[in-house]
Amino acid sequence: MIKRLSAEFIGTFWLVFGGCGSAVLAANFGGDGNPLGIGLLGVSLAFGLTVLTGAYALGHISGAHFNPAVSFGLWAGGRFPAKDLLPYIVAQTLGATAAAFILFQIANGSPGFAVDPAAAGTFATNGYDAMSPGGYSVASGFLVEVVLTAFFLVVIMGATHNRAPAGFAPIAIGLALTLIHLISIPVTNTSVNPARSTGVAMMVMGTPVSQLWLFWLAPILGGLLGGVFYKWLGHDRPDIVGNG
Amino acid sequence: MIKRLSAEFIGTFWLVFGGCGSAVLAANFGGDGNPLGIGLLGVSLAFGLTVLTGAYALGHISGAHFNPAVSFGLWAGGRFPAKDLLPYIVAQTLGATAAAFILFQIANGSPGFAVDPAAAGTFATNGYDAMSPGGYSVASGFLVEVVLTAFFLVVIMGATHNRAPAGFAPIAIGLALTLIHLISIPVTNTSVNPARSTGVAMMVMGTPVSQLWLFWLAPILGGLLGGVFYKWLGHDRPDIVGNG
Amino acid sequence: MIKRLSAEFIGTFWLVFGGCGSAVLAANFGGDGNPLGIGLLGVSLAFGLTVLTGAYALGHISGAHFNPAVSFGLWAGGRFPAKDLLPYIVAQTLGATAAAFILFQIANGSPGFAVDPAAAGTFATNGYDAMSPGGYSVASGFLVEVVLTAFFLVVIMGATHNRAPAGFAPIAIGLALTLIHLISIPVTNTSVNPARSTGVAMMVMGTPVSQLWLFWLAPILGGLLGGVFYKWLGHDRPDIVGNG
Amino acid sequence: MIKRLSAEFIGTFWLVFGGCGSAVLAANFGGDGNPLGIGLLGVSLAFGLTVLTGAYALGHISGAHFNPAVSFGLWAGGRFPAKDLLPYIVAQTLGATAAAFILFQIANGSPGFAVDPAAAGTFATNGYDAMSPGGYSVASGFLVEVVLTAFFLVVIMGATHNRAPAGFAPIAIGLALTLIHLISIPVTNTSVNPARSTGVAMMVMGTPVSQLWLFWLAPILGGLLGGVFYKWLGHDRPDIVGNG
Repeated sequence: MIKRLSAEFIGTFWLVFGGCGSAVLAANFGGDGNPLGIGLLGVSLAFGLTVLTGAYALGHISGAHFNPAVSFGLWAGGRFPAKDLLPYIVAQTLGATAAAFILFQIANGSPGFAVDPAAAGTFATNGYDAMSPGGYSVASGFLVEVVLTAFFLVVIMGATHNRAPAGFAPIAIGLALTLIHLISIPVTNTSVNPARSTGVAMMVMGTPVSQLWLFWLAPILGGLLGGVFYKWLGHDRPDIVGNG
Repeated sequence: MIKRLSAEFIGTFWLVFGGCGSAVLAANFGGDGNPLGIGLLGVSLAFGLTVLTGAYALGHISGAHFNPAVSFGLWAGGRFPAKDLLPYIVAQTLGATAAAFILFQIANGSPGFAVDPAAAGTFATNGYDAMSPGGYSVASGFLVEVVLTAFFLVVIMGATHNRAPAGFAPIAIGLALTLIHLISIPVTNTSVNPARSTGVAMMVMGTPVSQLWLFWLAPILGGLLGGVFYKWLGHDRPDIVGNG
Repeated sequence: MIKRLSAEFIGTFWLVFGGCGSAVLAANFGGDGNPLGIGLLGVSLAFGLTVLTGAYALGHISGAHFNPAVSFGLWAGGRFPAKDLLPYIVAQTLGATAAAFILFQIANGSPGFAVDPAAAGTFATNGYDAMSPGGYSVASGFLVEVVLTAFFLVVIMGATHNRAPAGFAPIAIGLALTLIHLISIPVTNTSVNPARSTGVAMMVMGTPVSQLWLFWLAPILGGLLGGVFYKWLGHDRPDIVGNG
Repeated sequence: MIKRLSAEFIGTFWLVFGGCGSAVLAANFGGDGNPLGIGLLGVSLAFGLTVLTGAYALGHISGAHFNPAVSFGLWAGGRFPAKDLLPYIVAQTLGATAAAFILFQIANGSPGFAVDPAAAGTFATNGYDAMSPGGYSVASGFLVEVVLTAFFLVVIMGATHNRAPAGFAPIAIGLALTLIHLISIPVTNTSVNPARSTGVAMMVMGTPVSQLWLFWLAPILGGLLGGVFYKWLGHDRPDIVGNG
């Protein structure tokens, strides 16, 4: 179990360090309007590749959830035992927070670096209303997080189903996370992952922390919906094959 | 059958929600000239990834057509029974419309959101002449939609052929849709999928609806051509192995 | 043989229609400085995806060369019979020219479309000196085309080697073509494929035609070097397994 | 052994020619602010694709390290014999230097080409402080190179583990290198590879050479950490299966 939890810790570290790191360090490189920066497309790709690479490297150890909403969804879908939920989620949240801490140290070595708890998307935090990158309402943010996490679970459960081609699941799941970011960064800066939201909010405090409730509630609700729906759709057998 | 149709509904929902959603919410993020937005490249990637991920998740349930032109083309190629055409197409069109409806609610939560039935590409609608993003004629639009849908079917039938490497078809097919968008968004905003065109047109009404005829006729014609051509080229056996 | 040549015709059509089509229609969408266009990155991706998708769809029919330099290289590497060289190359060149012709009809349906035989990169043509997009000399152009085509053949022969993982070759080969374009579009607009260069030059005439000698000579020379080198490196067995 | 070393030479050549070549020739195409250039996103993709394609082509010959830090890390992880370390590293460094030399000849054929040993990122060199593209400190540079190389080794060892899906390792490893570049180009111009840093520094001399110590020390330290960590995590068996 220590190795499974280590894999979840290190994998969620990689997700936050890579995904949020690319957003903080490289998205807007060169300043406003400079096309050299990787933009939302590069950040979307980075998030997806953390999961694609992490799942090939660590999937055979822990199932590669890296995300409390995924663990909840797989439980609802009959693929993950309830007794492992809490330790997995603790390991994921600690890994995300450690990654945010290291990322902060690196970013802080640049002359222009600053964090503003009142600015939308600061240090890759998630938010709604005034904290939404595109100024989207709390209702839009809640809806998009529920819908996207639900589909994320459908892809996870479908691509790891025993009738799906073996070995391709990390590609499908990682690129699903890329797709999710391509759609929704303007709305909430894209969470679909409570641990990721919590990790960077811990470095900023203020409003990002007070908005964390949505980024636990909506993704977990979406994950449960997706897990239950696919359990019905895919004639899933109830044996535990936790994978993600 | 209810599960197959549910998979087509949910898969086409994902295609429209992800592909058109990325176009509506993220393509032009930050306003004109801002390189942070994902642009046509990001939208092209998003459309392709909806099919790549949807096909790994749902392909073993319904064959993952998500597109009336694909269903018609696979029928013409001897891979799909005529009796399933109508229910598949109804499920696809309903899924696309439901996705457009949910997307509209999310987009509407942003202060600057507006839909203009006379503007090219509004709410990710397809169009020609004044409704073409690059001002292309109806002849150009018809030709590009026929050619691209025909090739789409060649890739679909070839990559799912029993002599092609197993398991890779969703990668080939999804990335073919990305490629198709990389070529033709400026011409018609890229359809190759009558259900996708219909879903977003339902939210806008006006000219996009009056131009829908082309986005049913040309893709289906292209799909039939591609299906018949590959049936000859690939020595296809007549058994039904519907896959997409 | 008619089916193999049809596959080469249609596959090279796809390569030129998709790769050059994305360059002509979408690279600079919206005009100079508009980040909505797909740029050199999008064009690079498009070229690679034509081969990735074409190889999954048609590789089991013709080996999916789609390129005279590949056919020559595979012959030099002991993987392709000399007697098939001429028919393959004729089919490839006809397919490329047909694609350029159809692409011209589509592009011509836009109000601002024009072709200028004295402008670098016009209608996706290849060139050097004044016809190089970045003003690179003929020596730079020759060198980069030789080196890149040689490596292209190393990837093709290595990824289709019987000790390489089966089924992944189209991914490796297609993305190698993307990589090649990421490097060299500024130098020669990237050929590594005499048929592709010839197809679009036929629609423009003038200087692009008078510079075609380099885009036959350098890629074929590179292809031969790569084929011979890998034949030594990979302990290749001499049986014909033509694949690309 | 000569073939294994040739494969490392040619593979590291490809890594530097493709990755650094795309940065030198295409990243900023058209000049400052021109969105046609491939930017940091295109360069990140290019680096990753050199490894993805090189590993499919050459992995079955040499294990496809292409990087002294990878060789050290695999040794620390029990996957590579100590006696092969020196010849591998020599071959890698020579390949990187040869690639930088050829790349210089090609770049030099453009009218505006110049190398400035005092400019950050000149000729794709790595650096810190004044030589960091974003002005990051030596501490930030050291930390990011250690962390990213450690994770690179975790992905390499995990994806080539005998419990991971066979054949997918080059995708996971190549795209991990893309991800690493998406995060850290602004910090150090991204090394994680002492041979790559050395090759281009040899063409520039001056400050990039005097800063090379960091780009040997930090990646190798990170590689050792990653190798040792994964050896514990993955229950790795001690047999030599050198792969990368």
